Parts: sequence; structure tokens; C-alpha cells
Amino acid sequence: MRLVVIGGMAAGLSAASRARRIDPKLDIVVLEKGDMVSVGLCGLPYYVEGRIGTPEGLVTYSAERLTRERNLQVRTGARVAAIQHPSRQVLLAGGERVGYDKLIIATGARPKPVALPFDCPQVFSLYSVAEARRLREFLDSARPRRAAVLGAGYIGLEAADVLHARGVRVSLWEREETVLGRRDYALTADVRDHLEAYGVEVRLGPQAREVPSEPFDLVVAAAGMLPDVSLAAEAGARLGPTGAIATDEHMETSLNGVYAAGDCAESRCRITGRPVWIPLGTTANRMGRVAGAVAAGRRERFLGIVGTSIVRVLGLSIGLVGLGLEEAQSEGFEAVSVRIQAPDRAKYFDAKPATVELVAERRTGRLLGGTVLGAEGTAGRVNVIAAALTAGMTVEEFEQLDLAYTPPLAPVADPLLVAARRLLRLLD
Amino acid sequence: MRLVVIGGMAAGLSAASRARRIDPKLDIVVLEKGDMVSVGLCGLPYYVEGRIGTPEGLVTYSAERLTRERNLQVRTGARVAAIQHPSRQVLLAGGERVGYDKLIIATGARPKPVALPFDCPQVFSLYSVAEARRLREFLDSARPRRAAVLGAGYIGLEAADVLHARGVRVSLWEREETVLGRRDYALTADVRDHLEAYGVEVRLGPQAREVPSEPFDLVVAAAGMLPDVSLAAEAGARLGPTGAIATDEHMETSLNGVYAAGDCAESRCRITGRPVWIPLGTTANRMGRVAGAVAAGRRERFLGIVGTSIVRVLGLSIGLVGLGLEEAQSEGFEAVSVRIQAPDRAKYFDAKPATVELVAERRTGRLLGGTVLGAEGTAGRVNVIAAALTAGMTVEEFEQLDLAYTPPLAPVADPLLVAARRLLRLLD
Repeated sequence: MRLVVIGGMAAGLSAASRARRIDPKLDIVVLEKGDMVSVGLCGLPYYVEGRIGTPEGLVTYSAERLTRERNLQVRTGARVAAIQHPSRQVLLAGGERVGYDKLIIATGARPKPVALPFDCPQVFSLYSVAEARRLREFLDSARPRRAAVLGAGYIGLEAADVLHARGVRVSLWEREETVLGRRDYALTADVRDHLEAYGVEVRLGPQAREVPSEPFDLVVAAAGMLPDVSLAAEAGARLGPTGAIATDEHMETSLNGVYAAGDCAESRCRITGRPVWIPLGTTANRMGRVAGAVAAGRRERFLGIVGTSIVRVLGLSIGLVGLGLEEAQSEGFEAVSVRIQAPDRAKYFDAKPATVELVAERRTGRLLGGTVLGAEGTAGRVNVIAAALTAGMTVEEFEQLDLAYTPPLAPVADPLLVAARRLLRLLD
Repeated sequence: MRLVVIGGMAAGLSAASRARRIDPKLDIVVLEKGDMVSVGLCGLPYYVEGRIGTPEGLVTYSAERLTRERNLQVRTGARVAAIQHPSRQVLLAGGERVGYDKLIIATGARPKPVALPFDCPQVFSLYSVAEARRLREFLDSARPRRAAVLGAGYIGLEAADVLHARGVRVSLWEREETVLGRRDYALTADVRDHLEAYGVEVRLGPQAREVPSEPFDLVVAAAGMLPDVSLAAEAGARLGPTGAIATDEHMETSLNGVYAAGDCAESRCRITGRPVWIPLGTTANRMGRVAGAVAAGRRERFLGIVGTSIVRVLGLSIGLVGLGLEEAQSEGFEAVSVRIQAPDRAKYFDAKPATVELVAERRTGRLLGGTVLGAEGTAGRVNVIAAALTAGMTVEEFEQLDLAYTPPLAPVADPLLVAARRLLRLLD
């Protein structure tokens, strides 16, 4: 029995490792087109910042260690040209054929092509090791003074953060009128105010189509990603409404014995029940684990996601989970929301304000999503909302959550509960 | 209609304020035996530390402000001598009678009497403003060098923390062999190691019955609390198996129209379904809010607690929630647990180790409790477990929680999920 995995990053290696743990005898081959595997790609901005010396610092397991400790055949520089499912073979770019009994497609995502609104000879992205290396070398050698970041999603914000840390003056351009892919003007105003306080220029909507008065020394294109589905699609695997590879809850594609996991695959939103595509490393790992287990013969299910994400930019942490108010409304919910600000611990412990927005369905009182902005504690708070969304809690149940309190770490009325109480009154 | 509330701290004022919000016409009288109301008593250690100038710094609302903004009649120095329920009156110590239609008992808790294992002329507690003031004055004037703290519950640990911060050499004495009221030797070893690294002596079990070689300049007695139930019991209200006042889920006692809330009242454990008594400010506020709502005519329920608590001592945060392994076993569960240590963020962001123990029922896989030790993020992690316990999640569901990841704030595999994965294997 041979399992072939296309892709040696988060999803692919989670799948291969899980399959190995379940079946010590399985013949497992991982094909990675690049020259490195197991790179924590989410760390690329911090390599550009200089916090990590080389991209190797982002590697969790080397190919050699994966071979030695997990008995995986890991091949780098192995670019797959085609999946020939009728004969259960993958064709490599050099002409070699590798047969499989089970196949896991973990081909990831690629950056969306960007049409620059102005000319700039130096354009970089932050989606691959090679691009990040090129950007860091440019920063080190050319000492640029002004940069434009195109796109105010989380990678755009991280790019702004690390360029600022490197002493570059940053201008953030976003064609939408809001940031982080949510139609949330309050969130956008908070993020904008915070960035501007650090001297970052923010141009949204029509402003991001104007011609800049001065040229930029470099551009970071961070306009989002697309699932890398070409191999799967050409082999006849069905794509879902999001454009990513469709799978069932066992991560199996429409091709029997062929699974997909990670940024190339669709997920299911646990709130709406509908397919979504939200590429994240955490999701990729979870999908990969399930795909690997199922490919190794164990019946497991991927339960879907609530879309938890977090970014830190210039000291402000921003967590998003579930649906924003406008998203909830366009999904057909009669939704209501509140947004509060409350101290994140006792005031005599240098409390910082935490902002919490909660969204709920009016008829049932069920929580639909949340947003948290603040300093420390933001990750924990967005994770509590994630757990509540996963459990399908109502605001009434959420308001009675037994949350930890001690003056140095948390206030007696956690901002989450302050928001829930306000929302309860609105639902009354 | 008059509502009388006995007690002007967390539960009493939450009740009174909630009743006022629901019924603007209600005649509401709050009787507080001390000379201050609305004191955040959990902050007393930090007043002793010197972080707050006067106990008034712990007051959320003054009596005057409660009267002006919430139309509450707040009487300080009003000690209730008896509740005469047949005539619906409370009798004050001076002989005055105050009639009521509805009564809320929020008399709180008092320190357990402590038999000192050695002589010391200076003994303090941390359970009242008066005691804390006396301790702080002693620290300011006598400049003591050596202190014993009796009891390694969370108040004992906080006492050790603030005495250490004031330059006092601390010896922590606990008659049990474990700390924080859990029969958990691994937790105890971690806490002990941490305290000893800061020069705090820790004496547990038999060691805490020996005679010390040198005398102490002061003792802080922190051997726990007892619910203050005398008024309720004398009036005929039923006490529960924990010794605290029994109520139904609407916080009503066995006396019709008489409610109890806060540290004097029993709660229900959401995991076992059984009565528990875990005095905490957060629980007091929630009970108070429900009691106030019900007394004002609205049908609300208190859903119980999972017993979330957290303490920070000398930079180490310790969060407990639900049942420990031994507690789960003595509650009759066939329980299993794992304990892991994992980095709390990406290693290139100065990750600190976080320790997570998860306890689950073998047969059903249901989570029963957890323990988290670490630096930042401990409160958030214990709160995620609290939400999962509240929802009755299994380990399988918990392991698929969609938790936030970004290198500066959280690792791609959160310590919670690392623990859950290990526990899943054990349950297999």
C-alpha cells in the first residue's frame, strides 16, 4: 500500500505523519516542488523583519528528520505535472511516474495576481520562501525608505508591521473600503487610527486608486490568495462553489481514494453549514490530520471551522471569528450586534482597553461571530468565542460562562461578558 | 414593593443594581454592616502590596453614587441581627426593624478559624478591608523581615506574592500535601519549584506541623473560608450539603421570597450536577444578577459553575477549572488525564512553556476539567476549557477547536490542542 502526498508543508506533512502513526507499514511518499519542507510560512514576515536569521529557522522538521524519525520518503524539488487517476499514478515534471494506492493533494495556495495601481520596479510578495528571501535581501542591500503594501488582509498588515520595524515608511493600499476582508467600518476605523498613530499611511477604497505623489522604493503585493487547484481539477476532481477542491467530511475528493487538505481544499463553516475557503495554517494542519488518518484506514471526520484568525500589527492584536454583522446579514440571518470597550484587567494593573463585538441571530439568540481588539488576552478571548460558536451557544448561555478572574490578569467582568450582557438587553 | 438586600459587596450590589434596571419603581434598600460598600475584595492583596494607596481605590461605586445613579438606598454600618421572616422584617443590631417584600441574603464568607502551629503575636488575614489595612500598616511601620503564610490556596499564594514584593522573606505552610485545594502532586511540584526559585520556603503536610527554628515577625492566616450563613440558618432557610445556603436555580432559598447569592450560597457544578461551594467574585456577581432579576419579577436561571479560578504568583499564572483527576475519580468518574508542556507561541517570539493538564471520562470521552500553568495566555486557555466544559464537549470535539494562531501571540499547535491530541490517543 502506498500513500502519495503532494505538498510538503502544513497539510501535507500533518497528513503523512498522522498516516504513519496509524499505520507503521504504509509506504509514504511526500512530493514537494520546492527545496524545503515543513516551513512555517506564517513566519515569513518575521524572517523579513530579521527576527529569524534564515528561512531554515522556520522549519519544524527537516526532510532528513522526517525520514529518520517518521519513516517518510520526502522528496524535494519534485514537481508534479499531472495526476493520472485512472492508472493511479502521478507524473513528475521530469517524466518519472510514481504510483499510488491513496493520494493526498495538499498543493496549497498561490498569491492572487495583482494589477499595480502605479509603476514600481521592485514588487515582492510574502507567500513563498523565495519571495521572502528576495524581499529581505532587498531591504538589507538597498535600504529602501518608502514602501507601499497592497492589500489590508492579515498578510498586508503583517507586512506593514515588519516593514515599519525595519525603519521603512509604509503606505497601506486597500481597494476595498474596509480591512481584513470584513465589511466592518468600526473595525476599519480602529485599525486605521492605530496604524496612522505609528505613521503608517492608510488608503482605502477610491484613495487606493489614485496615483501616488512620490514613487515608492518597493511594493509588497498582499492582495490575497487563490487555492492551487490546477492538478486536482485537471485530474477531474470536483471543485466547490468557493473555487477550492470539494471534499466530503472525510476529506475525500470526488475521486475515489484521493483526498485534499490545506489551502487547496474547501472547508465547511460550522455556523452556516456552507462551504468556505479560509486558508490558514491551523486549518491546514487539522484537515491534514484527518486526511492522513482516513487514507490510513481510520474513519475520522473533519468537523469544519469557525474561521478564527488573529493578527498583531504594531502592538495591536485583532482577532476575528465567525461572521461579522454584514456577513451574517448577507448569509440571510436577521443579525444584531453590539460593540463595547472595557478594561482587560483591574485598573491598578495597568489595564488596557479591549474592544469586543459580538454578533447574534435575533430570533434564536445564537451567537454568530465576534471581533476582539486589544493587547494581551486577545487570542484567549477570540478562542473563547470560537469554542462558544463551535458549541452553538446562545448569548444567554455565553453570558453565564464562568471566566477566570484575578486582578493582575483579568477583570471581574470580562469584556466578553460585558458585551454579552449588552447584547442580551438588545435581544430582550 | 420593597426589596431588602443584606450585604453591599459583589453579590448584594449586583442583585440590587439588576433589580433596579428591571423595575425602576422598586423600593430597594441595601444593608451593609461595614463602613464601605462595593469593595473589590479580591484586590486586597494588591492594596497590601502598595499598588493601591487606600482601600477606597478598590471601590467600584460609592454608596453616594449608587444612590444617585441607581436610586438604591445604601446604608453602611447597618448590621442585621435577625431575619424575622414570618413578619417579613429584618431586625438591625440597634433595634430598628426594616420590612421587606422580597429579601436577598448576600452575607458573604468569613475566614476559617485557624489554630496556629506556633506562637506569633502578629496574625492577619486578607478577608476584610479592616484586616488588610491593619496588615499594610504593620508592614509600613514595623518593617518585618520574615512572614509565615498559613494556607496555600489562592489567597495564601497571593499573600506570598505581595509579601515577597514588599521584601519580606516568606514561608508558606499548608497542612495538606498539595496546593490550591487540588490533590494534584504534579501541580504542587511545579508551584513549589517556582516559589522556591524566588526564595519562598514551602512546607507541606507533616512539614507544616513542625515547630519553626526561628520566630516569624508576622503570620497571614489564609486557611480558607466558610459561608456566612448564620442569619439565614437562624431564620430557617435550609442549608445544603456543602454548608452554604441552598437555593433553587432561581436563587430562591427554602423561604418563599427570600433569595441568597454570593459567597454565602451554594452553587451547582455543571459537570457533576451536584451542589458545590466555591466562593469567587465572578460567581457572586452572576448569582447576584440572577437573584436581583428574579426578585424584581423576571424568571431567570443561574446555570451553575464549572469552578474557573486563576491566580498569579511571582509571575506564574495558574488556572484551574472543573475537576482534577483525583476529584473526578472521587466523584465516581472513570477518569483519565494527560499533562503536557508546549511553547505558548512561536519560538522566535520568546515563547514560554505552557503546561496543560486535561481530564476526561474514559467511557464517553467527555472533558471533566483542566489545569493550565504558564505566563501570558493562561487566563485565555483556562477560559477555553471553561467554555468547553459548559458545552459538555468531548475531547474529540475539543481537539478540533478552531483556535487562533499567529507567531507573536500563539503557536500553530496551541498547548490546549497538543494536550487534547495526547488525551485522544489515550482514549482510543
